[in-house]
Amino acid sequence: MMTITLPRWERARSAKANIVRRLSDAAAKKRLARLREELVACLEAPGGEVSARARIATLANTYLELDAAGREHFFRLLGEFSVDRVAVSGAIDEFSSHAGGDAEYLGRVRRLRAALVSPWVRLLTEFNSVAGGVKFLVDLRADLLQVVECDGKFQALECDLRDVLASWFDIGFLELRRITWDAPAAYLEKLAGYEAVHEVRNWQDLKNRLETDRRCFAFHHPAMPSEPLIFVEVALTTELTGQIKTLLRRNSAISAGGGPTTAIFYSISNCQVGLEGISFGNALIKRVVNLLSKEFPRLRTFATLSPIPGLIPWLRRYLSARDQQPGEPAGGEGILSLLSAPSWYRDAAAAAALRGPLMRLCTHYLLREKRNSPAALDPVEHFHLSNGARLERINWLADTSRKGLRESAGMMANYLYTIEQIDDNHEAYVTSGRIACAAPVRELLR
Amino acid sequence: MMTITLPRWERARSAKANIVRRLSDAAAKKRLARLREELVACLEAPGGEVSARARIATLANTYLELDAAGREHFFRLLGEFSVDRVAVSGAIDEFSSHAGGDAEYLGRVRRLRAALVSPWVRLLTEFNSVAGGVKFLVDLRADLLQVVECDGKFQALECDLRDVLASWFDIGFLELRRITWDAPAAYLEKLAGYEAVHEVRNWQDLKNRLETDRRCFAFHHPAMPSEPLIFVEVALTTELTGQIKTLLRRNSAISAGGGPTTAIFYSISNCQVGLEGISFGNALIKRVVNLLSKEFPRLRTFATLSPIPGLIPWLRRYLSARDQQPGEPAGGEGILSLLSAPSWYRDAAAAAALRGPLMRLCTHYLLREKRNSPAALDPVEHFHLSNGARLERINWLADTSRKGLRESAGMMANYLYTIEQIDDNHEAYVTSGRIACAAPVRELLR
Amino acid sequence: MMTITLPRWERARSAKANIVRRLSDAAAKKRLARLREELVACLEAPGGEVSARARIATLANTYLELDAAGREHFFRLLGEFSVDRVAVSGAIDEFSSHAGGDAEYLGRVRRLRAALVSPWVRLLTEFNSVAGGVKFLVDLRADLLQVVECDGKFQALECDLRDVLASWFDIGFLELRRITWDAPAAYLEKLAGYEAVHEVRNWQDLKNRLETDRRCFAFHHPAMPSEPLIFVEVALTTELTGQIKTLLRRNSAISAGGGPTTAIFYSISNCQVGLEGISFGNALIKRVVNLLSKEFPRLRTFATLSPIPGLIPWLRRYLSARDQQPGEPAGGEGILSLLSAPSWYRDAAAAAALRGPLMRLCTHYLLREKRNSPAALDPVEHFHLSNGARLERINWLADTSRKGLRESAGMMANYLYTIEQIDDNHEAYVTSGRIACAAPVRELLR
Amino acid sequence: MMTITLPRWERARSAKANIVRRLSDAAAKKRLARLREELVACLEAPGGEVSARARIATLANTYLELDAAGREHFFRLLGEFSVDRVAVSGAIDEFSSHAGGDAEYLGRVRRLRAALVSPWVRLLTEFNSVAGGVKFLVDLRADLLQVVECDGKFQALECDLRDVLASWFDIGFLELRRITWDAPAAYLEKLAGYEAVHEVRNWQDLKNRLETDRRCFAFHHPAMPSEPLIFVEVALTTELTGQIKTLLRRNSAISAGGGPTTAIFYSISNCQVGLEGISFGNALIKRVVNLLSKEFPRLRTFATLSPIPGLIPWLRRYLSARDQQPGEPAGGEGILSLLSAPSWYRDAAAAAALRGPLMRLCTHYLLREKRNSPAALDPVEHFHLSNGARLERINWLADTSRKGLRESAGMMANYLYTIEQIDDNHEAYVTSGRIACAAPVRELLR
Repeated sequence: MMTITLPRWERARSAKANIVRRLSDAAAKKRLARLREELVACLEAPGGEVSARARIATLANTYLELDAAGREHFFRLLGEFSVDRVAVSGAIDEFSSHAGGDAEYLGRVRRLRAALVSPWVRLLTEFNSVAGGVKFLVDLRADLLQVVECDGKFQALECDLRDVLASWFDIGFLELRRITWDAPAAYLEKLAGYEAVHEVRNWQDLKNRLETDRRCFAFHHPAMPSEPLIFVEVALTTELTGQIKTLLRRNSAISAGGGPTTAIFYSISNCQVGLEGISFGNALIKRVVNLLSKEFPRLRTFATLSPIPGLIPWLRRYLSARDQQPGEPAGGEGILSLLSAPSWYRDAAAAAALRGPLMRLCTHYLLREKRNSPAALDPVEHFHLSNGARLERINWLADTSRKGLRESAGMMANYLYTIEQIDDNHEAYVTSGRIACAAPVRELLR
Repeated sequence: MMTITLPRWERARSAKANIVRRLSDAAAKKRLARLREELVACLEAPGGEVSARARIATLANTYLELDAAGREHFFRLLGEFSVDRVAVSGAIDEFSSHAGGDAEYLGRVRRLRAALVSPWVRLLTEFNSVAGGVKFLVDLRADLLQVVECDGKFQALECDLRDVLASWFDIGFLELRRITWDAPAAYLEKLAGYEAVHEVRNWQDLKNRLETDRRCFAFHHPAMPSEPLIFVEVALTTELTGQIKTLLRRNSAISAGGGPTTAIFYSISNCQVGLEGISFGNALIKRVVNLLSKEFPRLRTFATLSPIPGLIPWLRRYLSARDQQPGEPAGGEGILSLLSAPSWYRDAAAAAALRGPLMRLCTHYLLREKRNSPAALDPVEHFHLSNGARLERINWLADTSRKGLRESAGMMANYLYTIEQIDDNHEAYVTSGRIACAAPVRELLR
Repeated sequence: MMTITLPRWERARSAKANIVRRLSDAAAKKRLARLREELVACLEAPGGEVSARARIATLANTYLELDAAGREHFFRLLGEFSVDRVAVSGAIDEFSSHAGGDAEYLGRVRRLRAALVSPWVRLLTEFNSVAGGVKFLVDLRADLLQVVECDGKFQALECDLRDVLASWFDIGFLELRRITWDAPAAYLEKLAGYEAVHEVRNWQDLKNRLETDRRCFAFHHPAMPSEPLIFVEVALTTELTGQIKTLLRRNSAISAGGGPTTAIFYSISNCQVGLEGISFGNALIKRVVNLLSKEFPRLRTFATLSPIPGLIPWLRRYLSARDQQPGEPAGGEGILSLLSAPSWYRDAAAAAALRGPLMRLCTHYLLREKRNSPAALDPVEHFHLSNGARLERINWLADTSRKGLRESAGMMANYLYTIEQIDDNHEAYVTSGRIACAAPVRELLR
Repeated sequence: MMTITLPRWERARSAKANIVRRLSDAAAKKRLARLREELVACLEAPGGEVSARARIATLANTYLELDAAGREHFFRLLGEFSVDRVAVSGAIDEFSSHAGGDAEYLGRVRRLRAALVSPWVRLLTEFNSVAGGVKFLVDLRADLLQVVECDGKFQALECDLRDVLASWFDIGFLELRRITWDAPAAYLEKLAGYEAVHEVRNWQDLKNRLETDRRCFAFHHPAMPSEPLIFVEVALTTELTGQIKTLLRRNSAISAGGGPTTAIFYSISNCQVGLEGISFGNALIKRVVNLLSKEFPRLRTFATLSPIPGLIPWLRRYLSARDQQPGEPAGGEGILSLLSAPSWYRDAAAAAALRGPLMRLCTHYLLREKRNSPAALDPVEHFHLSNGARLERINWLADTSRKGLRESAGMMANYLYTIEQIDDNHEAYVTSGRIACAAPVRELLR
């Protein structure tokens, strides 16, 4: 889900790329030695734009041939081209020593702002002058994010790159396309690889997801037109479906009479790891709701059928902590032990014993647990609540795939988008953390 | 020429737009009264992205219905959403009071930078969320530039808008298209209106400029695909043409045998006033040289036939100042008086008398006069020298159109692009102001 | 109008083509001498398809370089490759001498049919194997039609070519496109040249005809996609317009409230002389009525404003004949003499004197005069009646252009297409010659 | 191979279509009863083109809902609309009773020809006025061909339909497209189904066939743009490959240095059963040779690796006949018995024993056996020889798939296309049956 999972496709691609491009050790060492020179040349060498462009293209190719260690080394070198502390101090002194009218003041503001921009921004931006530069930078940020996880000192660099990309990937530049079985096979192959929620098993499965009772929409940027940025899969039905199997099954969707009344968003996948933290999902859902409303005037209900990916990790922590609290009803161990059976959900007794406690715990998790206030702990829930949805239903044994059992004990949630309430829900959630929630869900807490 | 002239087309469009959109006085007053509220709402109102987008769309429409005075009023209101001086002071204090490692320092840099960003930037950027938002902002900057000319206090606002647009119109995002007689009539009508150097007289003239012995290329941005940003017209010939008439005449260009050897860039027009100061011309010329080289392998010479738009204004100042200098050979008045005859160039005696002094003065103007060192005073010359061209020839009676006589006494210059020397020329010019120049031109100074 | 007028554009093109391609006399003679050999080679030379294609391409190029006399010579040569009379006689004998069952009989039918096909058909068809072959054959038939007019002996050849083209240009293969101001300029230039009813004066006039209150649709064949076959111009109004000026004037059409109620087909032009006699107009009108009904649900009236091109020629014959009939009221000479004044319609007295008799005579012409029963004499009328329209109104001083006065004394007719009556009208007209007609028109006869 | 095999895809489609469309018995009977009326209405009912079109659309839909028996019934009814024998006799009498000049004679020829055209042609042609009419007629002919096989009385009908389609599918109207992995998935799915030579196993196999070392080209008709008519798969290699496995394996093709020298056409599949007998293969191969030559200037050898589909059936007949001839060396039974072992080719002894005799017999089959002189008996061989190829090599154990063993005892042939010899080879083959053949192949006969 949103900005969380690294798509398998991307992993595969990166891995392969590294294999293909990995050089012999000797050659690699030579290249690293040359790297610093190339970086300095790009930033400091005199000369016109023509030679600058040639240098930046060389540097891009050098980077692409590096393995993971080499790339970390590249970031370390790049990290040297930070703001000039002396220049910053000077600029602050100059800023503070003057008085003057508005125009003069704002001129000083601009100069100070300029002094606070790290040279690395200029260098990163210049990659866009090379063909394919945007995709290059997006992938470079994906690499950088992995490095940052281990070593926080790259954070400023990473933030600056995010700012550059955020300006380029402004929602106003994105194009929404409906994806059908008539899309290029090369594109669909890519799309299937990016699916991060419910794995595409084969071409027949993919075709099924693009049939007349389904819709698939994706955002694209004009500078990388054959790369989806994020896509959503929708099933057109006549009821608020609670079981993922029903949706993934063939020809399940539109009932006989009069067209669909309900659109279920059953998968939203971010495709570009390097765009993590730059959100399109909100706009995507709204535009899709808008498009579908026009095509099917009888559509009334727009809802998701979503995983609850953080449930089990939280449950383990929560139950083991509770068990150690005196006065709390123990039993956490029992729950976890029942869940550890491989196909516990087929065991009617076990399932019956678990249903009550797990539904209650899940509701608690969704309504009470926060990442940092006011944000809900569950990332998928947080995404939909931020977009103005409300938590409509929690479904028992809704996804019994291995992933579904492992992450959320087989439960799934419906988040409901009601056009008239989106704004209010969003507002209440982002300002005070209030979670819009259907009454029966809240009941589960008691 | 480059970023200089306001295209007739744009003027016409704006004028018409104002007429069409101008409201009755009463309605206009009401609207201005509402304007401030709308601005404040956009910046300060709580609420989700949905309502934010609705508010910004309202504001954009309000703006479009304003006349020139109303728009100036809008900018004045917008100017109030500048940086918060108190917050800036606080941020500087906070920045200066700490010490710390690199990561911590860079975090403070980011916070200080954020405090230095005026709220108006956020508001301007948000227009892009509306359909057609990019073109809206480009046109808004065109309006703003007119206001800035009269009143410098809008300069910081204007500079910030330029920065936003410069990031969006990064050369890497632009698409180069060849324009032919098969382009949409609606597009060609627009293009003809934007021609800023040699007026397009009618459709036959336009068709002639797109014939097989010509080429026309334009840059486009994906967010405004039917709007050219800048375009260049090229004639394919077999010699370094020095007369503009020869080029504009029908079927003048490719000689019988073996295809063209020379490409003359006879017109470069910026189309979007609102992108003034954001340069594409350099990249345009280089890409076109590259494309033409591939299509016509026998092409050896790439040169312009360019106006010298600043010559006459400079000449008036220069001659009247010189006449007042003791010891200088007077005669400036005589020159100016000869030039004031409406068709002096048809008078053989006058033309003969003027040729020597004017060619010398023109050479002096092009080689010696600076706007601010190292930049040459003439804007067209500066553009081509910055791109790495050299001044190859000055042509007498090269453009005897009214405009040609009025601006440059009928003279034109050839600037030569030699691929191997572009970088060196550029380098020498931008660092030390050295002007690459053919020997015969330099001779004229003596 | 339909299959009648040779478009100016086409004339111009042909004339120019001949000039461009005309060879010196000596070269031309040589070529004619070679022509027969080339023809024989194409039809009789042994060899595979590869060499056949090369030969046919050579022949096509030879043809294109011929002037009018050379082309007539070509047709004469081609005329020699008619059916083999001896073979026909033999085939008839063979056919008649057998008896046999159905299958055997039909086999003989096929063999006899084959013997009746002239070899020239095979040769003509083979031109399609050359790039641009379809357009070549269409233009070749245009040449042939001119030759046939003078010399009937080419008629069988011309009919066979028409049959080939009729099979290729089956309505099922044609594509209907809406033409807007966004069409390629090269295409619009061509379209303007083909306009055969109301001359396109300049690009502004053309743009005006493609504005939002107009529609223009054209049929195209996939083998010559940038060539319109036939096009119709429609004005969207709120009343049954009777004056052509009103329609050609700028921004005349849609009134303020609620969109158009009436679509006036004010020009239908065939573009390809070589497709004369192969009718698309019927299908064009029906599909356009269909498209417009979908776009403008309030459209109720579909009518033409049409010229009456055969009126004046008929009138001269009719009046001079009548004047010689004893017992008939003379006066024809007076009418013709009044009409001969250059701007008689500006002379109120003359116009008043003419109105009554001319309206009556025109009605007589349209309702009573036949080309060959049941077809009406007037070609435009015949076209619309065949399509199922009815004669709705005759308009006095409706088109006072030179052409309008010369052909139809300034009168124009409205033909009305009422969807529910199209079939009945068509049926009655083609089977019994009955002309659907509004009562007030019929009144005029009395 | 060419016009021989019914593609699996088409079979599947037809079968499925029948199931989907099959009506209840009662409804079917009703429909048949109505069918005759509908047919008569289409041919004889008075009325304009509008109602005619509506009737023909109704008839097309009725047809599509029929099952196989219903369709045969339809053809029987259609067969009644044959030529009118009385009218034919009359026309022949009229033709024979006159004398006259050329023009008059040709007029009679046209009238007699018209009398010889069956009304069913007019009806069939009219289906093209319905959307999708061309594909409908192509599929209808596929049905008709199946019926003809059982009952020759439909042959005249079938031949007339072929003539109509042959005129529409003239090679000049076809468009050659390169098919890549960027083609729409829906299109590629269809293409894979049409592959008639080497089955496409899955999407990975398909992708592999469209990789950089392969090429795939298909012909299309503008009236059915998403339907391939015929396609060819080419592998780019550096030698005359004799084993199909080598080609179907992944990444087998282009060797390291300097690009491919050899293009192997390893699969040619006709896609439309209903176009049987209307040949495109010749033009396809020539255009592809032409395109590849331009892309890869080092390509020298163009050859096929082809099945020998008629070998085994012929072998059975031939050997059993030979065994009964006194004086001939018996042994046929031994060969057939060895071949009947399921994987005989893995048994080294059996394979060794068979190689000599089978290679000799195969050569005899290819060089000596005729369908009807001069055409070779083997259909694939006949196709390539007609196109001007020569038999270059016979390969032992070249295709050990089940199909390869069953049809051609595992052998395959290379046919070589040498541009300079294509015409001569074609000429010699079609006029005198002479088979161009490499010397080593001819050696095998001894």
